[in-house]
Amino acid sequence: MKTILALGAGRSSSVLISYLLRQGEANGWKILIGDISQDAARDRIGRAIVGEAIAFDITQEEASKQSIARADVVISLLPAHFHPMVAQHCLALGKHLLTASYVSDEMMALHDAAKAKGLLFLNECGLDPGIDHMSAMQVIDKIKNSGGTLVSFESFTGGLIAPETDPENPWRYKFTWNSRNVVMAGQSTAKYIQNGTYRYIPYQQLFKRITPVSVPGYGEYEGYANRDSLKYIDTYKLQGIQTMLRGTLRNKGFCSAWNVLVQLGCCDDTYPMEGVDRMTHRSFIDAFADADKTVSLEEKLMRTFSLAKDGPELTRLRWSGLLDDEPVGLTSGTPAQILEYILNKKWKLKPADNDLIVMWHRFVYEQSGKRREIQASLVARGEDAVHTAMAKTVGLPLGIAAKLLLQGKIKRTGVVIPVDAEFYTPVLQELKTLGVELTETEK
Amino acid sequence: MKTILALGAGRSSSVLISYLLRQGEANGWKILIGDISQDAARDRIGRAIVGEAIAFDITQEEASKQSIARADVVISLLPAHFHPMVAQHCLALGKHLLTASYVSDEMMALHDAAKAKGLLFLNECGLDPGIDHMSAMQVIDKIKNSGGTLVSFESFTGGLIAPETDPENPWRYKFTWNSRNVVMAGQSTAKYIQNGTYRYIPYQQLFKRITPVSVPGYGEYEGYANRDSLKYIDTYKLQGIQTMLRGTLRNKGFCSAWNVLVQLGCCDDTYPMEGVDRMTHRSFIDAFADADKTVSLEEKLMRTFSLAKDGPELTRLRWSGLLDDEPVGLTSGTPAQILEYILNKKWKLKPADNDLIVMWHRFVYEQSGKRREIQASLVARGEDAVHTAMAKTVGLPLGIAAKLLLQGKIKRTGVVIPVDAEFYTPVLQELKTLGVELTETEK
Repeated sequence: MKTILALGAGRSSSVLISYLLRQGEANGWKILIGDISQDAARDRIGRAIVGEAIAFDITQEEASKQSIARADVVISLLPAHFHPMVAQHCLALGKHLLTASYVSDEMMALHDAAKAKGLLFLNECGLDPGIDHMSAMQVIDKIKNSGGTLVSFESFTGGLIAPETDPENPWRYKFTWNSRNVVMAGQSTAKYIQNGTYRYIPYQQLFKRITPVSVPGYGEYEGYANRDSLKYIDTYKLQGIQTMLRGTLRNKGFCSAWNVLVQLGCCDDTYPMEGVDRMTHRSFIDAFADADKTVSLEEKLMRTFSLAKDGPELTRLRWSGLLDDEPVGLTSGTPAQILEYILNKKWKLKPADNDLIVMWHRFVYEQSGKRREIQASLVARGEDAVHTAMAKTVGLPLGIAAKLLLQGKIKRTGVVIPVDAEFYTPVLQELKTLGVELTETEK
Repeated sequence: MKTILALGAGRSSSVLISYLLRQGEANGWKILIGDISQDAARDRIGRAIVGEAIAFDITQEEASKQSIARADVVISLLPAHFHPMVAQHCLALGKHLLTASYVSDEMMALHDAAKAKGLLFLNECGLDPGIDHMSAMQVIDKIKNSGGTLVSFESFTGGLIAPETDPENPWRYKFTWNSRNVVMAGQSTAKYIQNGTYRYIPYQQLFKRITPVSVPGYGEYEGYANRDSLKYIDTYKLQGIQTMLRGTLRNKGFCSAWNVLVQLGCCDDTYPMEGVDRMTHRSFIDAFADADKTVSLEEKLMRTFSLAKDGPELTRLRWSGLLDDEPVGLTSGTPAQILEYILNKKWKLKPADNDLIVMWHRFVYEQSGKRREIQASLVARGEDAVHTAMAKTVGLPLGIAAKLLLQGKIKRTGVVIPVDAEFYTPVLQELKTLGVELTETEK
């Protein structure tokens, strides 16, 4: 009996696990769900008879190997730094591995060994990275096949909230994924190429240097650059391209308010703060302002960052409670840990909240001497705080890839990402039947 | 025959070695000078018969041990990351060690072992750290002994250039010490306490949040906060103090111009740039600006940082050649490496240049219900590009401490810094006879 082992039964796994259980029933496969909490795994499975919940703790080496040994394919939704450990076991035991995470150097180092054993270690097969790669490559290959030459590729994806969710929230944002990653976002210099020259944006400029993005039928957004757009020039086979920029999408006004927190130093994770047990939201923020006691914290922020009293930045900080005298409720922490904790008080998804994924690509290309443009966009809406659009768009590509693999429809081996038609054609086709689809407009 | 081994015969060692050779002649001691270049060591010794030049390469373990075995005291001017290796050999061979560097965790870990063997591992015994500790503690102990309570301590030190040196240089600055350290300065968050509250300044605010410093008889300067002022609260025995701030001094206008380089991301040492072989000074700076090709680089900088066309910031960048189309002259490098290389073209000391050390302390204390203030300042001038004020003020405290140790006048053992009267009284006294002296003014 063919067996899939999915690791991690947290919030983000809901849609993946439902999909796997349905495929298990349809194809006669066993679906093992492993989590550090066997109860959490059991909850996700419900009454599905093809499912089996197992306790899985990657730090327990022998037990982990025994669980992995039972599977043909392993899907890991564990935190990314655990993937190399999972991959080592998969390599030793001859199992395929699928993840939605960026390929780390440690993972890449396993390429030859995986290939030699005929194993597929597919990474970056979620939403972003994942659907972004697949949908971009489908259009890029189409342009190339029709004799066009791509001169510019820009791509932005964001996990936002639906218009009807939390209408008073001026950020138009809540945590729909790992909140720590959101607080830490952008701390490495962003690298890209624009109009033929390499460009570098350090953290201190990242949320100031934003790109306006208009998604047809959905509205106006803003994007900030992701860490390293340059490495995808080779991956996408776009050598010589003039502009290559990948980024993160937010609602308008988000970046300038977040920039205040960045400039203050609130996202620093490198040192523990003093006196956290007596800290309030307000004294947390004040610790990063100057020590002038003759003016209020609001006035210091206005003076330092040239903000208006009721302007978009202070309105957002105020709404998040960051200027309140409320105790933080921690006894220790780095600035980033404390900020994440405070933000979670207002930015945690409520049961009935709907999240919204927005992805947007712009391709500029030359064909028969003319410059042309294609825009492609995807908007996906969550059903509730468990069956989020994030869980859907991250989980379904992984589930579909696992199915294709067990059905013998994937031949590639080694450490790969889904940029070839072998992946993107069937995955995007099935996603469409599941309501996840990009819309193209051409100029 | 008692023997001192000084490691490192670079520019900064000149005054230390001259001092040691004089003491060697006066007291009948052998002075070994070790450097990776035996010729450099020989040059420093000249005709002094008590001196002996040896080839010393800390990465050659056996040879290093043999050299250290010949000494009673080792003085290391090697780059700070080599000190733990030197210290391990000193521990194994039962030798005292003196450095001018901050105590690292690795060095601190040797405290008990050094103490058990009756060895002194004296660190932070140069200028800053060094003379700053000693001169501050002399005043602090005086205040305490007269029944006063310190409420505020601020201290700034800078290695600058003398007024007559390079009068056209708007920065009023050249590299008088390790140029890499200058480019990398401040990248960790600065921590201090002011008016009873902990304060944190991240890198992106550091060169904006400056303290004006007026040195009686010398003029107006500006200071930025050093990495961690908090750790000296315990070292100086100032628990409960309301303000404790240590920083670096620069001439007025330096920080706002340097801040432009910080904000652009030019001091980043974490990634290699692309196309360095074809890079000019100007294209280096432009890589960090936005890609707008319709306006000049100067206009982009003016727009992004609200600068005036002939204002103090652009005047300084222009003077440093950073906006010129001159080829950089490197084939690879991180932003920090490239910036250091470009700046060295204009900021390298010329043979006849004089450097200038400025140190300033302010002590506010309460005595008999009254608030009082003492300011203390030191100004030292270099003789030329070799016998710099920096070499003098870093080297002499080390040399004097070595002499006191060989004369049996120092009893402390273990990993220590010179904050006790046992060190500061004789060292400051002898420094005074050598022309290095603080001036106190009292309010």
